[in-house]
Amino acid sequence: MSAEEQKTQPPPAAAGAADAAPKEPKEPKEVILGEDGKPLSKGELKKRAKEAEKAAKAAERAAKEAEAKAKKEAEEANDLAADNYGKLPLHQSQTRTNTPRLNFTTLIPNSPSANTSTSTEIPSETQKVTLRARLHNVRAQGAKMVFLQLRQQTHTLQGVVGLSKDGEEEVVSKQMIKWVNGVSLESIVLVEGYIKPAEVKSCTIQTYEIQIKKIFTVVEAPQRLPFGVEEASRPEADYEKEDAQFARVGLDTRLDNRVMDLRTPTNQAIFRLQSAVTNLFRTHLNSLGFIEIHSPKLQGAATESGASVFEVNYFKGKAFLAQSPQLAKQMCIAGDMERVYEIAPVFRAEDSNTHRHLCEFTGLDLEMAIEEHYHEVLDVLDSLFLAIFKGLKETYSHEIEAVRKQFPCDEFTFLDETLKLRFAEGIQMLREAGAKNLDGSQLSDSDDLSTENEKWLGRLVKEKYGTDYYILDKFPLAIRPFYTMPDAEDPKLSNSYDFFMRGEEILSGAQRVHDPEYLIQRMKEVGIAPESMQGYIDAFRLGAPPHAGGGIGLERVVMLFLKLGNIRRASLFPRDPKRLNP
Amino acid sequence: MSAEEQKTQPPPAAAGAADAAPKEPKEPKEVILGEDGKPLSKGELKKRAKEAEKAAKAAERAAKEAEAKAKKEAEEANDLAADNYGKLPLHQSQTRTNTPRLNFTTLIPNSPSANTSTSTEIPSETQKVTLRARLHNVRAQGAKMVFLQLRQQTHTLQGVVGLSKDGEEEVVSKQMIKWVNGVSLESIVLVEGYIKPAEVKSCTIQTYEIQIKKIFTVVEAPQRLPFGVEEASRPEADYEKEDAQFARVGLDTRLDNRVMDLRTPTNQAIFRLQSAVTNLFRTHLNSLGFIEIHSPKLQGAATESGASVFEVNYFKGKAFLAQSPQLAKQMCIAGDMERVYEIAPVFRAEDSNTHRHLCEFTGLDLEMAIEEHYHEVLDVLDSLFLAIFKGLKETYSHEIEAVRKQFPCDEFTFLDETLKLRFAEGIQMLREAGAKNLDGSQLSDSDDLSTENEKWLGRLVKEKYGTDYYILDKFPLAIRPFYTMPDAEDPKLSNSYDFFMRGEEILSGAQRVHDPEYLIQRMKEVGIAPESMQGYIDAFRLGAPPHAGGGIGLERVVMLFLKLGNIRRASLFPRDPKRLNP
Repeated sequence: MSAEEQKTQPPPAAAGAADAAPKEPKEPKEVILGEDGKPLSKGELKKRAKEAEKAAKAAERAAKEAEAKAKKEAEEANDLAADNYGKLPLHQSQTRTNTPRLNFTTLIPNSPSANTSTSTEIPSETQKVTLRARLHNVRAQGAKMVFLQLRQQTHTLQGVVGLSKDGEEEVVSKQMIKWVNGVSLESIVLVEGYIKPAEVKSCTIQTYEIQIKKIFTVVEAPQRLPFGVEEASRPEADYEKEDAQFARVGLDTRLDNRVMDLRTPTNQAIFRLQSAVTNLFRTHLNSLGFIEIHSPKLQGAATESGASVFEVNYFKGKAFLAQSPQLAKQMCIAGDMERVYEIAPVFRAEDSNTHRHLCEFTGLDLEMAIEEHYHEVLDVLDSLFLAIFKGLKETYSHEIEAVRKQFPCDEFTFLDETLKLRFAEGIQMLREAGAKNLDGSQLSDSDDLSTENEKWLGRLVKEKYGTDYYILDKFPLAIRPFYTMPDAEDPKLSNSYDFFMRGEEILSGAQRVHDPEYLIQRMKEVGIAPESMQGYIDAFRLGAPPHAGGGIGLERVVMLFLKLGNIRRASLFPRDPKRLNP
Repeated sequence: MSAEEQKTQPPPAAAGAADAAPKEPKEPKEVILGEDGKPLSKGELKKRAKEAEKAAKAAERAAKEAEAKAKKEAEEANDLAADNYGKLPLHQSQTRTNTPRLNFTTLIPNSPSANTSTSTEIPSETQKVTLRARLHNVRAQGAKMVFLQLRQQTHTLQGVVGLSKDGEEEVVSKQMIKWVNGVSLESIVLVEGYIKPAEVKSCTIQTYEIQIKKIFTVVEAPQRLPFGVEEASRPEADYEKEDAQFARVGLDTRLDNRVMDLRTPTNQAIFRLQSAVTNLFRTHLNSLGFIEIHSPKLQGAATESGASVFEVNYFKGKAFLAQSPQLAKQMCIAGDMERVYEIAPVFRAEDSNTHRHLCEFTGLDLEMAIEEHYHEVLDVLDSLFLAIFKGLKETYSHEIEAVRKQFPCDEFTFLDETLKLRFAEGIQMLREAGAKNLDGSQLSDSDDLSTENEKWLGRLVKEKYGTDYYILDKFPLAIRPFYTMPDAEDPKLSNSYDFFMRGEEILSGAQRVHDPEYLIQRMKEVGIAPESMQGYIDAFRLGAPPHAGGGIGLERVVMLFLKLGNIRRASLFPRDPKRLNP
């Protein structure tokens, strides 16, 4: 048996004092002899008397407890509510009655994310319902009433279990209330009762409660949890308070127990927003004639840079995990697919442990043939981001609000017409503000942006233009990959761009070199042996139209839109150099 | 320089005979002395005379050729159409005029897949247009006219380049026609001209043609191609004909030159249909309240069976590529996400080289919490497949038709109400038809279906019920994975199911064991050490609702719907034990 199993077993019950009571002592004689045959001292006699008294009391207690136990058993046998509560047998799909089950979202008018497929209608008055929920909280009020908080994803509903009879039949008995009180938090309960309008402050659903008539556990959670959903949902700022009565649930603890952590309203909302981003991405690109592709992640050769690639044992040889779908999507363009996108994992074997790097993340990639100018792609990408931002704000305000309770932040701002700056203009703004390179030297138009200066520029842009989202165009050729198309007039510049959210890069893209001979020339110029990337060059030998594209990190978009501060919070099961589990 | 590069260079021009002609000989004297001072013999004289004559003719020829060259140069200098054709400089996004470019789909009324974003309207009469296309075919008619087939994805349009003048200005010159004649097939051309109604039999667009006034090459294809798009598009049956004048383009040749192969109308259609399947999958599940997840493909431990897993070097340790998102999607359910789906690569290190196995394929996976019965999931999955089949037939008939030209097949059939058979009923049908096990023994209700019997059952079902799509439910427990929930009444059966298309399995799914202790018991029963899958068990310790799900192979669905005969035809860049490129 593993350590984990032992952990979740309840601690052994305190040994019953009554059962362990010594046997009743014999009647004391006038002169009492000790074990050694000598009469006992007064002190010793006193002590023995006390012991005897104690034993008698213990016996009395034992008798009473036995009586209580018998009485309890008799009561339980007579518990007319016995059919209305308890633990259900293992769910093996025993029956199918098609009884509708209440989804809490139907209790919220105009909820866009309501899943109504198995749900009853919104009750206008008292209505009998059945529902499945997590037991989020329990609060007893004397022996006759228990208040429950029932949870479904981001919503909680108050449940009331109160002593009640229905004619002669006992519906909710004392025993039932006692049992409910003992159900462990996070158990999954199946509840039957009456939904009634009510004023409730402690739950997210504040206009209804359910009067519970039947309650069963479908699945029982262990008594000891790694942490509670409530404590894991506290605003980060609360931990900073001087009088904080609770320990912070650290990120590593959360990720180690990700199943528990995912149950917080914050995480329920984060991953619904993440799903929304991919859906908005696709919907917008589909409307522009793109098609979705699935390119192989197992590659015969390392693409881009060999340094940060994962190596795989592939039968008797080696394979490499794709660091991007760059080659595949360009091959699709050479294969006349015209406009393609892919949503797929991207692997980077970089040993960086920062707030914004993962070893595996979700790439939103696109590539398209262009007619006259790479700005056609810039415009498509810009319209895409605007569609995502607007879609999130319009349809997912409940989820954004839920995340903000734990991670408060300024609303994400963007302009009707997106700010597009040339790289040199951005450098100029930084220079004017006094920014320098990491080594203290003056910023020049051909320097790359350090992470710090990138953020600084974000702040300057926000101050001057009032936007958290903008585009930098025309990066210096020297700081872009060899397959980036140089500018037609200034060979030091390139037809490439980055997009930023809250001062951090979220998209990088460019027009690509589509001519194989020129590609070879560019490779030689930057010191790459063309032989090492023959597959890449070959893809263009058969003639590829001029094209451009870009790649977006899904987790970064979610992190920055919601200002989560760490990319791991936007990844279901993050992977970094130190984490491969769960 | 690589062999490939040398191949694309033109052969060295034949050395000019005129330039190599000897200098004019001196006037012959009466007696001619040889180099040794002696008079020459008659034979020698005759020989010298011939040489002189030859030299004179060569000189004459040289003069004529020089004159012709000068004349040609003068003509080219005077070619008033010189601005209307030629090779464009490298496309570096030099200008942006926003001139609309014609998309061929707009020439087909009610085309659902028209990408109208950069396209002009359907011309009602002669209209000036600009367009980019592949040069699919060229046919000269004398020196004054060339017919072109211009191709955009699945469509071809006839282009006519005919000698013409516009007032005094020469629009299409002889030189221009000659140049067009020499452009290599598969080059990308930019064309300006007039769209006019016409009757054309040789192109897919049979009601229009374009009178070309300007034509430029944007990208020039090499003269030698691995194979032509036309020959790669021939129906497979054509190769079988006795009088076939062409070689079959084999699957390996196609896959080695996938960029070329992707350009066939068949492949353009296949991958548009593949994209449609994923879109229909998502749209349907979104409407049922599912959310999309992205789970890590890098795993700390091998899931399911260790035998067929790819091993990855992960920094200083090892990782494994996910063989399915099974654990991750179940963890999401334990984490209260209720209904999730994922579209992502799935890796199988199986050394099988069959028509239906790939080492990397696209998994369409879903998992959902159930209320009363796993048939809730069966119903969701069934409604999903019906939505996909109907969506393909309704919106993609052009693409289905395009594929059928190369791969003719019966239309895929399905019933309004899907046929659901119990596994034992399927076995019974096979038994009645005389099917046996591979070893010749009688089929029993607990035997697994061999691939052959699976196909046989598909034929029996098709005969009896007239459907290519059906469901087998209640598989024997013994032939399903340990995490499959046993039937509540018959412990030999399980709450599991497979879906079939044209007699091949395309989905496998089940209710899962959600109770950790029972999961351990099941593992022990089938001989798996629970310690080896601690991560899997731990996921259920915190309480997971009863749930079920399934996994679909995208490429299989596409292959079987279109009856492509080999799964590699439904994968952009297939990966099998012998193929990692391109």
